[in-house]
Amino acid sequence: MVSASASVSAAAPIRLGMVGGGQGAFIGAVHRMAARLDGHYALVAGALSSDSERAKVSAAELGLDPERSYRDFEEMARQEAAREDGIEAVSIVTPNHMHYPAAKAFLEAGIHVICDKPLTSSLEDAKALVQVAKKSGRLFVLTHNYSGYPMIRQARRMVGEGDLGDIILVQAEYPQDWLAEPVEETGNKQASWRTDPQRSGVGGAIGDIDTHAFQLATFVTGLKTESVAADLDSFVPGRRLDDNAHIMLRFGASPNGRRAKGTIWVSQVAPGNENGLKLRVYGTKGGLEWKQEDPNYLWYTPLGEAKRLLTRAGVGANEAAAAVSRIPSGHPEGYLEAFATLYTEAAGAIRAMREGALPADLLLPTVEDGVEGMRFIQACVNSSRDDAAWTRLDSV
Amino acid sequence: MVSASASVSAAAPIRLGMVGGGQGAFIGAVHRMAARLDGHYALVAGALSSDSERAKVSAAELGLDPERSYRDFEEMARQEAAREDGIEAVSIVTPNHMHYPAAKAFLEAGIHVICDKPLTSSLEDAKALVQVAKKSGRLFVLTHNYSGYPMIRQARRMVGEGDLGDIILVQAEYPQDWLAEPVEETGNKQASWRTDPQRSGVGGAIGDIDTHAFQLATFVTGLKTESVAADLDSFVPGRRLDDNAHIMLRFGASPNGRRAKGTIWVSQVAPGNENGLKLRVYGTKGGLEWKQEDPNYLWYTPLGEAKRLLTRAGVGANEAAAAVSRIPSGHPEGYLEAFATLYTEAAGAIRAMREGALPADLLLPTVEDGVEGMRFIQACVNSSRDDAAWTRLDSV
Amino acid sequence: MVSASASVSAAAPIRLGMVGGGQGAFIGAVHRMAARLDGHYALVAGALSSDSERAKVSAAELGLDPERSYRDFEEMARQEAAREDGIEAVSIVTPNHMHYPAAKAFLEAGIHVICDKPLTSSLEDAKALVQVAKKSGRLFVLTHNYSGYPMIRQARRMVGEGDLGDIILVQAEYPQDWLAEPVEETGNKQASWRTDPQRSGVGGAIGDIDTHAFQLATFVTGLKTESVAADLDSFVPGRRLDDNAHIMLRFGASPNGRRAKGTIWVSQVAPGNENGLKLRVYGTKGGLEWKQEDPNYLWYTPLGEAKRLLTRAGVGANEAAAAVSRIPSGHPEGYLEAFATLYTEAAGAIRAMREGALPADLLLPTVEDGVEGMRFIQACVNSSRDDAAWTRLDSV
Amino acid sequence: MVSASASVSAAAPIRLGMVGGGQGAFIGAVHRMAARLDGHYALVAGALSSDSERAKVSAAELGLDPERSYRDFEEMARQEAAREDGIEAVSIVTPNHMHYPAAKAFLEAGIHVICDKPLTSSLEDAKALVQVAKKSGRLFVLTHNYSGYPMIRQARRMVGEGDLGDIILVQAEYPQDWLAEPVEETGNKQASWRTDPQRSGVGGAIGDIDTHAFQLATFVTGLKTESVAADLDSFVPGRRLDDNAHIMLRFGASPNGRRAKGTIWVSQVAPGNENGLKLRVYGTKGGLEWKQEDPNYLWYTPLGEAKRLLTRAGVGANEAAAAVSRIPSGHPEGYLEAFATLYTEAAGAIRAMREGALPADLLLPTVEDGVEGMRFIQACVNSSRDDAAWTRLDSV
Repeated sequence: MVSASASVSAAAPIRLGMVGGGQGAFIGAVHRMAARLDGHYALVAGALSSDSERAKVSAAELGLDPERSYRDFEEMARQEAAREDGIEAVSIVTPNHMHYPAAKAFLEAGIHVICDKPLTSSLEDAKALVQVAKKSGRLFVLTHNYSGYPMIRQARRMVGEGDLGDIILVQAEYPQDWLAEPVEETGNKQASWRTDPQRSGVGGAIGDIDTHAFQLATFVTGLKTESVAADLDSFVPGRRLDDNAHIMLRFGASPNGRRAKGTIWVSQVAPGNENGLKLRVYGTKGGLEWKQEDPNYLWYTPLGEAKRLLTRAGVGANEAAAAVSRIPSGHPEGYLEAFATLYTEAAGAIRAMREGALPADLLLPTVEDGVEGMRFIQACVNSSRDDAAWTRLDSV
Repeated sequence: MVSASASVSAAAPIRLGMVGGGQGAFIGAVHRMAARLDGHYALVAGALSSDSERAKVSAAELGLDPERSYRDFEEMARQEAAREDGIEAVSIVTPNHMHYPAAKAFLEAGIHVICDKPLTSSLEDAKALVQVAKKSGRLFVLTHNYSGYPMIRQARRMVGEGDLGDIILVQAEYPQDWLAEPVEETGNKQASWRTDPQRSGVGGAIGDIDTHAFQLATFVTGLKTESVAADLDSFVPGRRLDDNAHIMLRFGASPNGRRAKGTIWVSQVAPGNENGLKLRVYGTKGGLEWKQEDPNYLWYTPLGEAKRLLTRAGVGANEAAAAVSRIPSGHPEGYLEAFATLYTEAAGAIRAMREGALPADLLLPTVEDGVEGMRFIQACVNSSRDDAAWTRLDSV
Repeated sequence: MVSASASVSAAAPIRLGMVGGGQGAFIGAVHRMAARLDGHYALVAGALSSDSERAKVSAAELGLDPERSYRDFEEMARQEAAREDGIEAVSIVTPNHMHYPAAKAFLEAGIHVICDKPLTSSLEDAKALVQVAKKSGRLFVLTHNYSGYPMIRQARRMVGEGDLGDIILVQAEYPQDWLAEPVEETGNKQASWRTDPQRSGVGGAIGDIDTHAFQLATFVTGLKTESVAADLDSFVPGRRLDDNAHIMLRFGASPNGRRAKGTIWVSQVAPGNENGLKLRVYGTKGGLEWKQEDPNYLWYTPLGEAKRLLTRAGVGANEAAAAVSRIPSGHPEGYLEAFATLYTEAAGAIRAMREGALPADLLLPTVEDGVEGMRFIQACVNSSRDDAAWTRLDSV
Repeated sequence: MVSASASVSAAAPIRLGMVGGGQGAFIGAVHRMAARLDGHYALVAGALSSDSERAKVSAAELGLDPERSYRDFEEMARQEAAREDGIEAVSIVTPNHMHYPAAKAFLEAGIHVICDKPLTSSLEDAKALVQVAKKSGRLFVLTHNYSGYPMIRQARRMVGEGDLGDIILVQAEYPQDWLAEPVEETGNKQASWRTDPQRSGVGGAIGDIDTHAFQLATFVTGLKTESVAADLDSFVPGRRLDDNAHIMLRFGASPNGRRAKGTIWVSQVAPGNENGLKLRVYGTKGGLEWKQEDPNYLWYTPLGEAKRLLTRAGVGANEAAAAVSRIPSGHPEGYLEAFATLYTEAAGAIRAMREGALPADLLLPTVEDGVEGMRFIQACVNSSRDDAAWTRLDSV
């Protein structure tokens, strides 16, 4: 799919715009590198900051035509839709509360949307966005980038093919330590909006990183989460959103009638953890373990046999992993490559849609996945308020 | 304490008996090696099996005087107490349900008891045993052997000295895979009694391994567990006790008024895990991580500094670790050495008690610790029956 | 330098051509991704294959103007030099024996050269190329890509600042296993030219991967290799070039008069090794260890202190590492990012040269470094022929 | 062999004496713990120190009968040989130069000898000792303890059974850092004799640790070392013996006519290394990797398959490993257990010899192995003096 030799199509690059991602932002730059790596996009327009000076400088730095550096996303959607050479797709990389209005504006203008996670800042917005997206007929991609890692694709395929038997256990965790102190009070821009309910929504760590863990667990296992019992905390005094969550999960019945269980632990206050997303999946026939910080490895133990270290593009890698690998084993690919895979798959989908047909086997996270993530956030918040009582996702 | 040069005292070895631990047993042989390593004990009597033929053969194999190979522990306690050269201490290594009656018999006969965990098969027995032990004035040691590891001692000291600040998070886990299939139905003796409520008590994985994780978390942090929310499962069809547990914990307030949270995951059905006890402790100033399978290492991250790999007897090791190290760093000590440390510390205590004075700073797990472990088991079972409702340990 | 916010300049991208790298090639695709990641280049011309059909198809796939897809590099150099919008730089990604003539053609046409390693297929060509490059006044970059890894930059800076004291030991290794069988006989294109003296030169593993290890050791320590004692083997029967090398090194005196020693082991026939480049450097005050397959980590032990795990962009990372990091710690960067760093630094140099001034502190491998690498290859071959006798690099 | 249930024989323990190993010694205490662990020995006599006061105090501490605490080994050998209850075996744990005279005295007195490595302080003594040992008909065991590790036994068996095909490469290393500074000048007793040619012999690091690496490589592969090219250094100014060695090896032809190559690197001055003995063996069909500091793991890669992590007593462990394992997988065994395995196997041999028959399949290092180790030391020293010229072991 993104195999090296085919990583750039003869076709002209897709014209891309960006909302958010001006100077000082983290994720905007990541989206741009992801869009560039395989050569499928050209960034040609942006509303890069709500601060007009910063927007202008950022646009200049990126070499955008000043005319196509917009004051806000409404103007951008309107004007780009009107141009013959207007953008075909837009990346939305703002704080969460802007996802919904921005995505709505572009979808309604007929422009494909690639949107950072979580989907929105409220479940209500999320549900509304599903309708907007459906009606638009445009592509909507939610950048749960970790699902782009080759060994995650490998794991998903292995589970799907029954290598693990019936899944019984899903253990996920995502500890960090960058919010161990009240850095939001000292001008850290990233911390500031992520701990602000107005901009983030009801979830702190849960919205920011737990949705990743949840999405990954779902993506790999194909299981549907039925209910959660969650205990949320704000360990840093004065913090307004959770910075740690302990969550127990109960999954819906598998085709064989098995009901898996699991836990997710996420934290932003655990010293010694940088970006420790980890997923372990156990079934009746085997187990898998994967760590985001060492993403080229996947531990696989068939029950009753020795543990094996599968490597990206190595001898144990399956077709699902190979399809999204760029370089040989032993040459580590990282976070940006996995992120780029989503962009590249989106490019394939956009090109297919030009011909009218959305590929059937797309693995890209959808707006519906985003709603499920928002349900998960809300159910965790509700559960925690109710002293960690079991809360069904379909009850919120 | 068990430094190499002083590991054998000039004093005659302590005369030791053993209940259980005949041929085919696992933990009995471990206790014997632990007793031998530092040279403080001589095994001279036993009631090694309820099967009299096996008892006899086992005793012969161990070189016991046939006269001192007993049919049952009652006879043994009686006759040994009556001998001038009778045993001074006894190791109880039977299935759980025999711990209470055997310990009672020996304590009442004036013999020190070294007892495998969990304390008993019911909380009721456990409470009764506290009274028996108190009244006896004898030493009672519960072999939570993992607390004998040097890097666990190091961790405890570091927490105690405030290196981590206020503890906010305790993440423990103990996955195994040896019960992933119903091996109790195919003659596996270890599996058979561990999955039998008559011999194990109300807990399966919880009783067998979760008590270790719980004890270790408590030992290292000094925190008291206030309540648990537990979700227990028996994933193997037909199994009568739990083989997996997800537990959320709330700890009592620290001296500074902080309330830590935590989780414990234990499993006997997670393929790829042999004996994966792991403890992570996070405070406001730093974090610690330790894995039982690589016990000579302790990861330490002071908040805002690079992660450090502390090693047993290495440059970062503190006095608490050094006190229970036998050999230089880089020369791995293992499970038996940690177990032997409990025996050696017990020997020190027994010798001190000959002079009338029990050392004040003993780190050996006590009968009270055992009761706390039994409360924990019972609270988890109760919570799980109540759909994982929060259950206070002092309510059971 | 390549910090995220500044990774694309407002200035127009540099017009880039490529020689080699058509369909089925490995390293050509890598160069293209490396050129794209930070947005500094636009690939506009190529002589992608000596097979004209493959060249044409490859060019189309990359979206090149058919007019600028050339039959050979001579034609390409001539015509591009004549165009107003001709390429400013060219990437040479052919087998080794073509490096010299191609580089010469472009340099003499006034076009900057970015060339894959090793420099040439013979020391003679290498020496000639130095003269050509000097005379041209153009930039010549040799893509020893591993020197672009942030933690390698960190290591180099630490050594330079004396954190390790006087360097006494350099232990490098680079084992692989992809040539453990005679795959060159079964149509593997990569294997075919790498084991062919006509296209590779006198070195097999030594030329292909040992030069990387040698360059990295030199780059990090700043030491000059004085002599080598090398034992080369072709373990696969019938192979014409070495597939394993054991090399002992003696370095020239440091400013303090210390003489370091070292070894390099490289292999292409060691099962279980994918791309195991590893570097360990020890000095009188500390030690460093780094593995290419886990490139975001650098182990650092100050003598007499606990070992520390430094991470890219983590708290222990220095400015040299930060300057070439794109994303936060815990978000792994990999092989392509390190490669891209060379391209980005080259872009900076090329832009600076437009103003007439080559930056003084460039860390890019030069044509002189390439000659040193070729001397190293030749000295190893000579030494091995002479039964591993010590052979001075300045004697070849 | 040392399986838990059979670890203590009904037979009375073997009466053991010790020469050296008084207070302050390291290896004497190790031997005593090793002798105790499996219960086959009773320490009853000693000449524990050349300092008579220390000898006396040490003996008392160990509970020896004061009558059997001797002034020197001659007296001890004489008197113990004359006693009805005299020692059957003796452990020699002195500095190297005393090995020969002490071993000779006991062997000639009809007492089995368990001797620390290296065999002697000179090759001449070593050769003489072979004759003495042969003539005596007594057991002579050289405690190359690392060969007692279960995963080393596993590796040896795997090589022997052809799992790796023909061996082509042996990469061993043994870095430490405890002599990175001139600690021999500041009263460190261990450092003092190890850096003193009078007591150690011609080798420093080579004698102390390289013999271990050499023996292990030989033990696992069964290959005979034909010649070495060695570059020895004393990096610490003023040190009289080598503290670092780079060695290239050429092995004799295998049964299939293959000639393997290898390297050994040993160092006592590499900061960050505690006791980093590591062995990697590669053949035409697979590779093995093992590290002493994590001894319960063995990495195995069959060529063309995924890497596997074999664990002691785990599902991939073979009979050779199982035979010397005491406890289940996941319960780490360490250095002392491996050491104890040699003692336990020696006990088996001694008991078998009582019946007249030395077991045929003994894996214990012999006096001949010790001579081979001494040849290796001498050949390395000679080679290094000759500027690392290839030096045959059979030439010294």
